Amino acid sequence: MSGAGHAAAAADPAALDALLDAARRFVRDEVIPHEAALLGGSWEAALPVLEALRARARALGLWAPFLPPSLGGLGLPLDAYARLSEVLGSTPFGLYACNCQAPDVGNMELLHQFGTPAQQAQWLAPLAAGRVRSCFAMTEPGQAGSNPVWLTTRAVRDGDAYVITGHKWFTSSADGAAFAIVMAVTDPDAPPHRRASQIVVPLDAPGYALVRNIPVMGEAGGGWNSHAEVRFDAVRVPVANRLGEEGAGFALAQERLGPGRIHHCMRWIGVAERALALMCARVASRELAPGDPLASRQAVQFWIAESRIAIHAARLMVLDAAGKIARHGQQAAREEVAYIKVFVANMLQQVLDRAVQAHGALGVTDDTPLAWWYRHERAARIYDGADEVHKAVIARRELKPYLRA
Amino acid sequence: MSGAGHAAAAADPAALDALLDAARRFVRDEVIPHEAALLGGSWEAALPVLEALRARARALGLWAPFLPPSLGGLGLPLDAYARLSEVLGSTPFGLYACNCQAPDVGNMELLHQFGTPAQQAQWLAPLAAGRVRSCFAMTEPGQAGSNPVWLTTRAVRDGDAYVITGHKWFTSSADGAAFAIVMAVTDPDAPPHRRASQIVVPLDAPGYALVRNIPVMGEAGGGWNSHAEVRFDAVRVPVANRLGEEGAGFALAQERLGPGRIHHCMRWIGVAERALALMCARVASRELAPGDPLASRQAVQFWIAESRIAIHAARLMVLDAAGKIARHGQQAAREEVAYIKVFVANMLQQVLDRAVQAHGALGVTDDTPLAWWYRHERAARIYDGADEVHKAVIARRELKPYLRA
Amino acid sequence: MSGAGHAAAAADPAALDALLDAARRFVRDEVIPHEAALLGGSWEAALPVLEALRARARALGLWAPFLPPSLGGLGLPLDAYARLSEVLGSTPFGLYACNCQAPDVGNMELLHQFGTPAQQAQWLAPLAAGRVRSCFAMTEPGQAGSNPVWLTTRAVRDGDAYVITGHKWFTSSADGAAFAIVMAVTDPDAPPHRRASQIVVPLDAPGYALVRNIPVMGEAGGGWNSHAEVRFDAVRVPVANRLGEEGAGFALAQERLGPGRIHHCMRWIGVAERALALMCARVASRELAPGDPLASRQAVQFWIAESRIAIHAARLMVLDAAGKIARHGQQAAREEVAYIKVFVANMLQQVLDRAVQAHGALGVTDDTPLAWWYRHERAARIYDGADEVHKAVIARRELKPYLRA
Amino acid sequence: MSGAGHAAAAADPAALDALLDAARRFVRDEVIPHEAALLGGSWEAALPVLEALRARARALGLWAPFLPPSLGGLGLPLDAYARLSEVLGSTPFGLYACNCQAPDVGNMELLHQFGTPAQQAQWLAPLAAGRVRSCFAMTEPGQAGSNPVWLTTRAVRDGDAYVITGHKWFTSSADGAAFAIVMAVTDPDAPPHRRASQIVVPLDAPGYALVRNIPVMGEAGGGWNSHAEVRFDAVRVPVANRLGEEGAGFALAQERLGPGRIHHCMRWIGVAERALALMCARVASRELAPGDPLASRQAVQFWIAESRIAIHAARLMVLDAAGKIARHGQQAAREEVAYIKVFVANMLQQVLDRAVQAHGALGVTDDTPLAWWYRHERAARIYDGADEVHKAVIARRELKPYLRA
Repeated sequence: MSGAGHAAAAADPAALDALLDAARRFVRDEVIPHEAALLGGSWEAALPVLEALRARARALGLWAPFLPPSLGGLGLPLDAYARLSEVLGSTPFGLYACNCQAPDVGNMELLHQFGTPAQQAQWLAPLAAGRVRSCFAMTEPGQAGSNPVWLTTRAVRDGDAYVITGHKWFTSSADGAAFAIVMAVTDPDAPPHRRASQIVVPLDAPGYALVRNIPVMGEAGGGWNSHAEVRFDAVRVPVANRLGEEGAGFALAQERLGPGRIHHCMRWIGVAERALALMCARVASRELAPGDPLASRQAVQFWIAESRIAIHAARLMVLDAAGKIARHGQQAAREEVAYIKVFVANMLQQVLDRAVQAHGALGVTDDTPLAWWYRHERAARIYDGADEVHKAVIARRELKPYLRA
Repeated sequence: MSGAGHAAAAADPAALDALLDAARRFVRDEVIPHEAALLGGSWEAALPVLEALRARARALGLWAPFLPPSLGGLGLPLDAYARLSEVLGSTPFGLYACNCQAPDVGNMELLHQFGTPAQQAQWLAPLAAGRVRSCFAMTEPGQAGSNPVWLTTRAVRDGDAYVITGHKWFTSSADGAAFAIVMAVTDPDAPPHRRASQIVVPLDAPGYALVRNIPVMGEAGGGWNSHAEVRFDAVRVPVANRLGEEGAGFALAQERLGPGRIHHCMRWIGVAERALALMCARVASRELAPGDPLASRQAVQFWIAESRIAIHAARLMVLDAAGKIARHGQQAAREEVAYIKVFVANMLQQVLDRAVQAHGALGVTDDTPLAWWYRHERAARIYDGADEVHKAVIARRELKPYLRA
Repeated sequence: MSGAGHAAAAADPAALDALLDAARRFVRDEVIPHEAALLGGSWEAALPVLEALRARARALGLWAPFLPPSLGGLGLPLDAYARLSEVLGSTPFGLYACNCQAPDVGNMELLHQFGTPAQQAQWLAPLAAGRVRSCFAMTEPGQAGSNPVWLTTRAVRDGDAYVITGHKWFTSSADGAAFAIVMAVTDPDAPPHRRASQIVVPLDAPGYALVRNIPVMGEAGGGWNSHAEVRFDAVRVPVANRLGEEGAGFALAQERLGPGRIHHCMRWIGVAERALALMCARVASRELAPGDPLASRQAVQFWIAESRIAIHAARLMVLDAAGKIARHGQQAAREEVAYIKVFVANMLQQVLDRAVQAHGALGVTDDTPLAWWYRHERAARIYDGADEVHKAVIARRELKPYLRA
Repeated sequence: MSGAGHAAAAADPAALDALLDAARRFVRDEVIPHEAALLGGSWEAALPVLEALRARARALGLWAPFLPPSLGGLGLPLDAYARLSEVLGSTPFGLYACNCQAPDVGNMELLHQFGTPAQQAQWLAPLAAGRVRSCFAMTEPGQAGSNPVWLTTRAVRDGDAYVITGHKWFTSSADGAAFAIVMAVTDPDAPPHRRASQIVVPLDAPGYALVRNIPVMGEAGGGWNSHAEVRFDAVRVPVANRLGEEGAGFALAQERLGPGRIHHCMRWIGVAERALALMCARVASRELAPGDPLASRQAVQFWIAESRIAIHAARLMVLDAAGKIARHGQQAAREEVAYIKVFVANMLQQVLDRAVQAHGALGVTDDTPLAWWYRHERAARIYDGADEVHKAVIARRELKPYLRA
């Protein structure tokens, strides 16, 4: 089916079902067969396979589901997109194949909502087409991520340019990216939430350096599949590269992180469903003695039941939040987004842990994707607001009426 | 507002909101003020208060929300009823005040769906009007409740009568009830799921004896608020007292337990919300030192946040299951009902435990309703299918496609 | 065996084993048979039974194991006493039968260590002999127990007397006690830890009133088995009733609470062992279908295994702390005591919860002692320092070297 | 201090303290400085560093602590060795540096206890001297490890030789090892526990092949630090290579696994202590805002307290089991070993999880050893008997007296 066809999924339940079916077949028949090779090899080795998958995704009408048709996408509202993300998230490169992977998806949303026409032409168009990749440079190694207004990277105005100096890390996918959106302090004397701005920095700019791809859980990775430490040493970019007005960096970050969180949650449900399916398949076939499958053990049965219950809860919560965002905007669903960020990340870790345990020795090998998720999704409880940050925010809101009294 | 007015809530969101507001005011202003006295005293002392509350509930149009208007109720579909139940469940006698308390609600549903006109006239009408109470005698002390087809109570056909002999317990609210619906084996040679029938037994019948109100967590209680051990010693009742056809007992029990589980879940959310509110109020006002409220402690904040997240998940799951039942019938939502039975009961216990802990010594006293729920809702993970029974069923369904392969 | 004989248990492992065996037989054959009646009835009905048990305990040489032989006790060091306490703690009145129950045991220790000869003659001797009971009035309803230096009860010096005015609760066993040891502020201007003193107040003193036995988890109880709210309204007692020097109240409370915590922990292990034994017996005999005992279910097996592991850990920790106290004094084992207060209370609650669940409906009835412990030992995580208080203290010590650096 | 000097630690507490101090200094000053390089590089790059560390360990009298002085070791009894292992285990290569690393340590114990003089001369002597490495080939990819008597590898007698054919995996450290001890079925018709024998197979024997170092949690590793999949294709070895009598394989495996489990537990406590120390150091220095360290947050404080409590419990349990083995032999401590295998592995995973979380983004990087342990010690709950296997065994023992009754 063509992209135009699937774009109808935005409005029509039957069309959405057809889209999801197409995505399921794509994942099952075309992506998963490459999974082991993609996870086990280098980024360079993966690229041609991924490009071929991207071509197929385009052909199947699965490209850039969150972008409007005018940008080549499907124009799905967030709740429909959530259901698709779950399908694509069930394999590590599913979202990449359809050009809706972090951090590009967040950058595309930012540029789409807040970019000037010139910015969109220069940076959004090639991203939307999948010709380049991008990254987002916010986190700093010396500053706690839980305090997003405490940044040391500076962008000093010099005529028509900003001169940016700073040190960032967990600039995911910087390796090979065409540009970064950089959070930098433009006015250190402004109120905390008005100090920073977001500025697009082409990564061939003099003064920029990728220090290293940070080894994360044993892997430095490469290309899109990496997390860089980077330095900006008096990097000079035009003032026109700033997104929104000066001082709007924190507000834009909030706009970016809200959907970012829900994107992660949608994907995690896909990961959890896959882990549950792998667990069921394993325990149904693995025998403890001839004719006695592991599935006969109640402990295993309970892992399966508890996983199913938790995934069900997670899905309802994510769809509820996504629907609220689709109908009332991001701000209206702030609480629900905080709930799911905590709940789904923890659900995911538990389901993965059970699936690993149910696989026994096989579970810790790289012969299934479980070990990859086990180590790389440990960060789910940390990035985009650690569990503790969200819980503190949730409690503050909950207690507000009582403390006022 | 009149009952007729609130009956519109069945169809109209604004009318439902008005109904819920009326219920919230009723609970807050008229029921909760009597809570401590009702919990601390005898059933005899409670009765006049409860009768007065019932009169108010009628006057406010809150009576028998699940019954059709023809029987004096509001005719709410299950998802609307779920929202109301949450409100009424936030105080221990809220559902009783509106004549939608277990076990009568389940018996009314059974009689409404499966009773003959004569049976409805004789037993449903007075129940619907709140003139009598009833009970349901299924569980036997010698048989595991997790095996519902293993019963020893016998109903032997003798002409136009059944002669019933057996021993039951956890026949909740038998004390003072007008009749029991009794599960008894009518054909021990039938296939297991066709052995039993449900038969209405008036409790003034010779041969019936209430052995004791079982002391449960320190309280034998009384009247509606009790759990009886009863004996049937050659109790003779007309065959016309049988509900449905002979052998239909198990099928009817399933029909009764499905909604029964969702009724409990709806109520538990109300209990959990109340516990969370009590916890917030307590920690906001309790000082650890002058000017330093307990609410400043992060451990307490996290209990609040985790409780809010879990209640949110529970509510979405219950409304989803209720909506599915309302639209597609009970059978269609069997899996979802199993999920919530496990999830909501466990959520409730955790929220209550945190609320007790946050109250310190006050939490274990009967000066708040928390300790009452803490001990009486411990059974939530046991009755209507223990956690373990539901998990085993969920796992069986989940594993089915894999074991078949 | 005579008390003199068992007193040898202080030094001799074989004598200790004989003592423990004697205690096991006493509990099994003489105390447990009365358990249901003692738990289900009033204090008045229990008293004659308990007096008879006390006579038997004396005759068996099990009396006052922690007191020196000069006071009629066995003179056990704390680690030997810990092992005995576990045995006696496996039934709710086991410690009472041997006159080593809280709060008397703590008061006897205080009077023994810090009382003047006159005070010992007047108050310790009759306590040691079991002729009277006593209580300890520290906790105040308006003040957080986690801040032990924040008290409002005042003892104003007036010549040779203190005039005491204040409001206390959870003055356990005040009902029928001969005297209370009362924490009261003697110098509000002293440094916080020197403000209070401990003063013995005979409970027939004018101005003292027992407001109520607080209903705790559904039971107000009576006599020793109760928790009173009390008021002191200008109660006049001689200055000679003060324990230790003026301002030593907090220090003495620490001396009292340290052993008090370990006494509770020792007893809780006994409760947990009993719960585990009840669980094993139940699941071995309860059938899910003819010939298929509940013990065949892996979930149940894992509850048993996890309970055994946790009890084993708890016992080693308690014996380690008790041994350290016996050898090096209470102060040396402060950290270990904090560890066990948290660990053992939580272990107990989990084991009880599993035992209740394994018993199904029977578990929530009062037909076993499980439900009694389930509700009354919920307070274990609150009294003598809530979990949260101990964790904060442990973390402070652990972090000290790092924060100093 | 010389090895001879430290050998006194076997008997003398002061000498043991001196030994532990020496080990602490060695780890802190000589091993940990190389930690990052050793973990981040190849086995080939690590070897020269490790050889230098081994030379230092010898010079410091820390070599082969579990071996008798006659074999160049310290002759420590198991409880003393447990305390040393904890120290050495606090860095990933600490045990290797002192030649007491798995799997060699287990093989040395087997050869020492059950080897003939000729076998000891040929295989134990070079292992004890650290001139070669070895491996243990038991687990098979097609058979559940939880059923140790279900093996397919065959050793067929052919004159004075066995001809071994089979497929093994998780033959840890096979890469570069001089020989393997192989579990193979010598008599398929014997009773299950008498079917297999243990046979030493030199790894240069024709027919042996290392298929691959299995990628485990993202790392195939190399040399000692790897887990191989291997094949034996008609490998011919003399019958004299068999350890013990024919059919003794399972019994010897039990002899090997018992101490193996306790060795792991001892090491895990070291890992957990290190993780706790890293967590404390991090939260004391990491600021959320200027002057506001992460250590001020109660959630973090509670992680620290809960970790300390659990480590304390784990240590007492391990020392108790080790002491029991040292005094009464392995068989006498079977239950205690099962308890610690479950408890310590789970404690470790929780402590590591908290330490990772407390480090935020840094926690998932390889800039600390936490992420290495997080992924590689996930297997702790699986190898040498999964949690589930031990729990089932513990429950069986616990239930035995009740089921018999």
